[in-house]
Amino acid sequence: MATGLKELTPRSENYSQWYNDLVIKADLAENSAVRGCMVIKPYGYAIWEKIQAELDRMFKETGHQNAYFPLLIPKSFMCREAEHVEGFAKECAVVTHYRLKNDPDGKGVIVDPDAELEEELIIRPTSETIIWNTYKGWINSYRDLPILCNQWANVLRWEMRTRLFLRTAEFLWQEGHTAHATSEEAMAEAVKMLNVYANFAENFMAIPVIKGVKSANERFAGAIETFCIEALMQDGKALQAGTSHFLGQNFAKAFDVKFITKENTQDYVWATSWGVSTRLMGALIMTHSDDNGLVLPPKLAPYQVVIVPIYKNAEQQAAIAEKVSGIMEKLRNAGISVKFDNNDTKKPGWKFAEYELKGVPVRLAMGMRDMENNTIEVFRRDTLVKETMPLEGIEAHIKQLLDDIQANIFKKAFDYRTSVTRNVDSYDEFKVEIEKGGFLMCHWDGTPETEEKIKTETKATIRCIPLDGDKTPGKCMVTGKPSAQRVVFARNY
Amino acid sequence: MATGLKELTPRSENYSQWYNDLVIKADLAENSAVRGCMVIKPYGYAIWEKIQAELDRMFKETGHQNAYFPLLIPKSFMCREAEHVEGFAKECAVVTHYRLKNDPDGKGVIVDPDAELEEELIIRPTSETIIWNTYKGWINSYRDLPILCNQWANVLRWEMRTRLFLRTAEFLWQEGHTAHATSEEAMAEAVKMLNVYANFAENFMAIPVIKGVKSANERFAGAIETFCIEALMQDGKALQAGTSHFLGQNFAKAFDVKFITKENTQDYVWATSWGVSTRLMGALIMTHSDDNGLVLPPKLAPYQVVIVPIYKNAEQQAAIAEKVSGIMEKLRNAGISVKFDNNDTKKPGWKFAEYELKGVPVRLAMGMRDMENNTIEVFRRDTLVKETMPLEGIEAHIKQLLDDIQANIFKKAFDYRTSVTRNVDSYDEFKVEIEKGGFLMCHWDGTPETEEKIKTETKATIRCIPLDGDKTPGKCMVTGKPSAQRVVFARNY
Repeated sequence: MATGLKELTPRSENYSQWYNDLVIKADLAENSAVRGCMVIKPYGYAIWEKIQAELDRMFKETGHQNAYFPLLIPKSFMCREAEHVEGFAKECAVVTHYRLKNDPDGKGVIVDPDAELEEELIIRPTSETIIWNTYKGWINSYRDLPILCNQWANVLRWEMRTRLFLRTAEFLWQEGHTAHATSEEAMAEAVKMLNVYANFAENFMAIPVIKGVKSANERFAGAIETFCIEALMQDGKALQAGTSHFLGQNFAKAFDVKFITKENTQDYVWATSWGVSTRLMGALIMTHSDDNGLVLPPKLAPYQVVIVPIYKNAEQQAAIAEKVSGIMEKLRNAGISVKFDNNDTKKPGWKFAEYELKGVPVRLAMGMRDMENNTIEVFRRDTLVKETMPLEGIEAHIKQLLDDIQANIFKKAFDYRTSVTRNVDSYDEFKVEIEKGGFLMCHWDGTPETEEKIKTETKATIRCIPLDGDKTPGKCMVTGKPSAQRVVFARNY
Repeated sequence: MATGLKELTPRSENYSQWYNDLVIKADLAENSAVRGCMVIKPYGYAIWEKIQAELDRMFKETGHQNAYFPLLIPKSFMCREAEHVEGFAKECAVVTHYRLKNDPDGKGVIVDPDAELEEELIIRPTSETIIWNTYKGWINSYRDLPILCNQWANVLRWEMRTRLFLRTAEFLWQEGHTAHATSEEAMAEAVKMLNVYANFAENFMAIPVIKGVKSANERFAGAIETFCIEALMQDGKALQAGTSHFLGQNFAKAFDVKFITKENTQDYVWATSWGVSTRLMGALIMTHSDDNGLVLPPKLAPYQVVIVPIYKNAEQQAAIAEKVSGIMEKLRNAGISVKFDNNDTKKPGWKFAEYELKGVPVRLAMGMRDMENNTIEVFRRDTLVKETMPLEGIEAHIKQLLDDIQANIFKKAFDYRTSVTRNVDSYDEFKVEIEKGGFLMCHWDGTPETEEKIKTETKATIRCIPLDGDKTPGKCMVTGKPSAQRVVFARNY
């Protein structure tokens, strides 16, 4: 339906190009003048705001509070936790100076060599270190626990190959950081937040996910256990959509955070951290959209309904506008967000293509014939099906339709995932099957060496060891050694 | 009322120390391990979230959309607008490298000399440059205008002397950046946003403000005209609470952003920018609070009402809790946010002091006597007045009380400001009066030289040239030259 400048490369031709086209043409984001850093455009940001609002509500319902910690982290903090520095210090932006000055040669400004920092500062790639250094001052006794903080922030990792939303140097995210008196409580928190993420992904983003545990190779740098939700994109590649880490006492030990227990002994504090990022935007786009553009779940669409008037002259335009204002009121009273595009400089056909590209779940069109018949044309974005409906009771119909769309796109994604998830029992078969994409459920002997060999030879990684589902033991497809259960292999974003 | 560790230095003894005590002891914010960067603690952040939510609603109602632009700005961008670089480049954090590596000597990590950036990147002190470089790609014709974007973000300015909320290296803010086809439209936008800020300050923060124009000396670096709202703190010092800039075509020229006009000619685009920051937290604290702690306007309090039970045993505690749950429901249904502090490890007296310190507008206390009498003790934070009220109709009473508190603290601040605002007509008198604090309304000849002389000799600056009020001309108190109207002088934060 989209035409001319707005046309997308079809998915079948080049999935990756289709994604790039869509992000740009639907006005979601674009690259900036700074390598790897994106500009999130208003329409893209409006979707992110919906994601934020819903997650924030869920975090608060589970007892968390927001706070804000510094952007900059002293270099020495990064070194306190041995694995953490290995994982993060190699790819970060380093602030070395705090002043510019006029170039004595008159050529703009230069870094002032007299303004060198004694200790370099790192732009946070994640905030465990600065936060645990802060928590040290907040925690004395078990009465100060738990601490349940979340932060909405920007972070920066110096990625070499970047793609809009999926992998950018700077990205937006939330990071929860909690402190607990016992290992059990911290572990329960990590699992609780995993479930919050899975609930959000499935019931708001309409993305089916597998909940699981990461293998040691894929674990967060500094964690004892990393839980994750894994989604499957339409091209058969996996995407990690959120992680929740049980950090044990690693950061408490690194920053010397001890507390007096109820029994009047001293112990190090137990920690979790958990996060999702603007990467979710990439998952949202790649799970549901089609060759006509974005398909948005109604629960996250900036507006759920757009109304386009079809008229030949100003008189007709005015008559339709009046009729539409009544419809808008009914829809809004029913809790539906709606936009009326009465812009006179664009033709209806252009608008139809534009709102398809932008993934508005429902489009209503009203012309003079509809006015006479007291009807309206209803178009649903997910199936591209159009029908004419009576205006009487339209708000109930649209409300139901939005629920149907939300359920339908989840089902579509779920059915697709089911169709490309299969058990594979030999490594030879694995090498053939992995080329076709999807989730391969295989037995693995649990060693990093076998995982590494598979990754090197096939570019597939273990996405997770699923928490639910088939727990039948078997034999590793590569080494024949015992395996406790099948794990999920895939190529991934 | 606060006791022991929670006690504040009285304002009369040391206002500055009182402020620092209050910010720390009411759990609003604290200094971090990074010089000049603060940690905003959950209770402080909850107030900031209320501020954000209300402003964001106002921005959207006036047609603005949120977007997000990069944290880092290429050094060369800062130099494009001559005045802008003078104003901002001298106090910024400079990223020169993008990698750390293990120290060959085994002493932690060092900056990798092989990872030096070709061009240094600046952490944004404000985003005009990166945004106008982006707008260049968004604007071709008058049909693309106006662009009405806002960004919620962190920024960083390398301040030498910092104070929590009032002046920190990193701070949180919103920055609006709009692009227009005509000078008139841009000017109208700048004034519109000034009015939004004034409305927010007066009707939500309960802070009376003077709307005005900055003198050339105090203008934003790169602006043609800077509008501001100026508030007066309890110690008689002024605080700039928000600014809105008419930028003319300065940034459009610096980044070559032209558009085709309706008349098919070419012109540079007209710009505004406007912002408020976490500095507002400082204004909020210093305007209303007292020696017992924070006083919050009900419209921005994280919770408006706290209920404290008074009991002797578990049975009484349970009976009161049951009674309170009914009261909470009534209050919540009336749109009032309420917290029930049923924590058994703290005494009522401790709780009373704690919630006074934290500025909760209304405290309700219920003991066995109240249970019997069907009454409740109602304490209002602003006047510290306590009375016993019947439970019947309590929700209507509290709703009215919250409105009264909101109005009363505004009036108190307004009356204080009135009491310390006076006309001063001679420079000798000025030198005496400025020591007493407050706003001095004086005639000034309009020259930067006279303003500079006054600043050097008295540490007072022109806070603004008021838009409203007395416009009678007169003679400059220093030079005797003609003056168009009185302007506002004060010492300031």
